[in-house]
Amino acid sequence: MRIEDLETPAVLIDLDIVNANIARAQALFDGLGMAFRPHVKTHKLPELAALQRAAGARGIAAQKISEAEVFAAAGFTDILLCTTLLSPAKIARARRLAAQGRFALVADSVEAVSALSARGTAPLTVLVECDTGGGRCGVQGPEAAASLAERIAEAPGLRFGGLMTYPRAGGTARVQSFMAAASALVRAALGDCPVISSGGTPDLARAGAAPIVSEFRAGTYVYNDRSLVERGACGLGDCALTVLASVLSTPTPDRAILDSGSKTLTSDLMGLSGHGLILEAPGARIAGLSEEHGHVILDGALLRVGQKVRIVPNHACPVSNLVDQVVFHRAGLVERRVTVAARGTIV
Amino acid sequence: MRIEDLETPAVLIDLDIVNANIARAQALFDGLGMAFRPHVKTHKLPELAALQRAAGARGIAAQKISEAEVFAAAGFTDILLCTTLLSPAKIARARRLAAQGRFALVADSVEAVSALSARGTAPLTVLVECDTGGGRCGVQGPEAAASLAERIAEAPGLRFGGLMTYPRAGGTARVQSFMAAASALVRAALGDCPVISSGGTPDLARAGAAPIVSEFRAGTYVYNDRSLVERGACGLGDCALTVLASVLSTPTPDRAILDSGSKTLTSDLMGLSGHGLILEAPGARIAGLSEEHGHVILDGALLRVGQKVRIVPNHACPVSNLVDQVVFHRAGLVERRVTVAARGTIV
Repeated sequence: MRIEDLETPAVLIDLDIVNANIARAQALFDGLGMAFRPHVKTHKLPELAALQRAAGARGIAAQKISEAEVFAAAGFTDILLCTTLLSPAKIARARRLAAQGRFALVADSVEAVSALSARGTAPLTVLVECDTGGGRCGVQGPEAAASLAERIAEAPGLRFGGLMTYPRAGGTARVQSFMAAASALVRAALGDCPVISSGGTPDLARAGAAPIVSEFRAGTYVYNDRSLVERGACGLGDCALTVLASVLSTPTPDRAILDSGSKTLTSDLMGLSGHGLILEAPGARIAGLSEEHGHVILDGALLRVGQKVRIVPNHACPVSNLVDQVVFHRAGLVERRVTVAARGTIV
Repeated sequence: MRIEDLETPAVLIDLDIVNANIARAQALFDGLGMAFRPHVKTHKLPELAALQRAAGARGIAAQKISEAEVFAAAGFTDILLCTTLLSPAKIARARRLAAQGRFALVADSVEAVSALSARGTAPLTVLVECDTGGGRCGVQGPEAAASLAERIAEAPGLRFGGLMTYPRAGGTARVQSFMAAASALVRAALGDCPVISSGGTPDLARAGAAPIVSEFRAGTYVYNDRSLVERGACGLGDCALTVLASVLSTPTPDRAILDSGSKTLTSDLMGLSGHGLILEAPGARIAGLSEEHGHVILDGALLRVGQKVRIVPNHACPVSNLVDQVVFHRAGLVERRVTVAARGTIV
């Protein structure tokens, strides 16, 4: 069966492109002598994480404890959870994962360290999350990082695991300077800073510019998407995830309506204009989305009712999370459907 | 258990508000003598559709054939599918639903009518979708509507079911004028125009201004959301769906980070600034979302690490579609978890 024969909308994964993306990234980090830890939030598929591991990845990163649990159940035994946990129930789940293999999570506040700390248990490994410019979570400077590292090292039931950051795109130089200062302070206080973890697909190719980093995390690189093409981080031919959609209507000469809207493509604009690139009509613009419709301004492109098209979405990661299954194919030939094991793991 | 004791993020449904929203809308349409057909895309829950039916709704509207199938399996026997179908496999599924009860769908092109038509079968009811200003699908004028109605009436295996539109917000006057002209032409040609169906929560309260409409469809009214509050279509106290989230971090005096991002709140801006309203901190602004984080600019509001907050999302409908379960509560007291039966029905 060819992908054009599938019912629409469908989320397609080109396995040849996936394998090339995995091999290229792993070769880069092998060359740098830097550990590579793929983030599974993008694909949420143990099967693809197994390909990443087979290529040489050092463990995986997950964003939710429930996501980590799905991969632990699938046999992954080296997991970095890139969030802190505050609720006793979730912390108990983390301790269960820690009992099964290498497991670490992060904290960026005294409150989080207090919540994670517990007497009379096997130690839980905690990295200090650092805000190196990303403007999300994280301590605000190297001194604060070292101070929290000491707090973790002293806390009952915790082990200091290192420093972690999710930097802003283009922020590699700041990662280097922040982490150099923070790790020096940590080493002066504690003698060791076991891991310095940074990440982000937008700056994956520039990872070598922050050699202080010991481990790099990236998720989207496995699929890529329109936002990464627009940033120059990859080419259109490197985009493994596409949404197959049908043209439902061409109500005016300049408008076509697709059967794929925000419930498949998501509303993520990622700073771009338009909601994805139509491979068969790159000059057309997906100007708007309703829930189950894509609104296309044709700008001279030709689409006919019933035609199937493939869309490179702005952001691949949330698309995976919307569907129960994706379709693996090679060069347009369907291989099989795969259940998105960790879809909806938000708690 | 109180909702504050739930793990986060969680999607909460206030049943008292749901019941009030259902009763108020149904009373409006009963007063107008207009049939009301709730759109199930918002809640995707047969249990809530049953409440809508018990209140007096005439059948339901669905947006995908798979969504319609979930409700048919749950015993709903009067379904309007508000999209056309082009693929033989989906049309066969529609014919199966039509054999089980009242079922209709729409078409807006000769191509769609040809695809739906089949000899030697029980007739399938097809309404003409009209573009009365919504700018999505639909024939462009009353003459085109009447012409396609005649085409449907003549096509083997089809029955003309009436006219349908999804108008633009604020477009009620245009619905009246378009449908008056179109239905007159249809009646002149075919003798009857069984249904004139319009809809949309933003103009629900103005439905009486288009008395030509025989049946009104609305989905979001059952939950309401921030976009409807901002439009003046409802008050904040009418919003039944909220997302419970925890404050993960307050990394700077002016920033808080929530454990709910685009994978629960969705990126739908609906033309608004910010990604939802925090009930406990209405002066704060959810300035950005990453997949599992909400980025809050506090602007003087106070939030502490570990605090749970409730967020009224910009758009309720895609939020329902992201979670396997929602939590029914009354006045903050948890009643039970309910599986979102039609979550992910996109094909």
